[in-house]
Amino acid sequence: MMHPIRILGIDPGLRRTGWGLIEALGNRLTFLGAGTVTSDDKRGLAERLVQLHDGLSAIVAREEPAEAAVEHTFVNKDAGATLKLGQARGIALLVPALAGLPVAEYAPNLVKKTVVGTGHAEKEQIRAMVKILMPRARFDTDDAADALAIAICHAHHRGSAQARLAEAGAA
Amino acid sequence: MMHPIRILGIDPGLRRTGWGLIEALGNRLTFLGAGTVTSDDKRGLAERLVQLHDGLSAIVAREEPAEAAVEHTFVNKDAGATLKLGQARGIALLVPALAGLPVAEYAPNLVKKTVVGTGHAEKEQIRAMVKILMPRARFDTDDAADALAIAICHAHHRGSAQARLAEAGAA
Repeated sequence: MMHPIRILGIDPGLRRTGWGLIEALGNRLTFLGAGTVTSDDKRGLAERLVQLHDGLSAIVAREEPAEAAVEHTFVNKDAGATLKLGQARGIALLVPALAGLPVAEYAPNLVKKTVVGTGHAEKEQIRAMVKILMPRARFDTDDAADALAIAICHAHHRGSAQARLAEAGAA
Repeated sequence: MMHPIRILGIDPGLRRTGWGLIEALGNRLTFLGAGTVTSDDKRGLAERLVQLHDGLSAIVAREEPAEAAVEHTFVNKDAGATLKLGQARGIALLVPALAGLPVAEYAPNLVKKTVVGTGHAEKEQIRAMVKILMPRARFDTDDAADALAIAICHAHHRGSAQARLAEAGAA
């Protein structure tokens, strides 16, 4: 017998971290909520990470998801940008794990392939497909739409171990 | 009138995060403790970040430092290594900030220049100078010695705003 699973998708970023919450019952997906947690770029880095932590912690406590999924992004711009993303991503992985949730990771290509059908989709295609898959979906930013796409990706692949990145063993 | 300040230095890393605790009374530095928090590389990334979080949180709760300092490191190897470091660094900045501590950041060159006298010191020189500055210092790893050096750097520069990296405004 199937039972519904609440999935929280997170698209991490230091300035804006998107979140999207869906309920999956087999192949049926229901939109529950989405939004963006921001940090104040006039504050120091540690304080900004606390803002992301507090925002995500409040969502996890309020919405009580059962599982979480985070995009495994690389930034190829420069080491400074990658370090910044890594710091925000650390918080995005930590918060649901502290609440006892399993946290899966998906490469951007797999998220796009799952939601749009091709690994090289544009942002507008992702937004459009999220709307087609869940007509009641509302999101304020591209980050929130991406977070919903990550949650949808996890709903499709949560049974298959190979879909998750095997981070274990990679120091 | 001067009063003693407890400073926690942190040298972040996903596999090993070093910490070093000193007391500064003007120019007089006293070693209080040092060690290494490790994460289990057979576990998933989110669980490993929880291990770092829990280890650092226990130290902050037990030792009650008043201020924290974290090294502002770049890794030039590759984007994957930089992302990993960033994730661990996010936890190292978050934990003391969650406890209400101000968290300063120092570039590796400034840490070396302050402790050894030159910005291009080797690891052995840092260990030796930490021992000369604080003869009672004991540390189990290079990461713990580096963390003590970061704490010493903060003891010297905590009065001067320009010594801290102005992360604010840099998204």
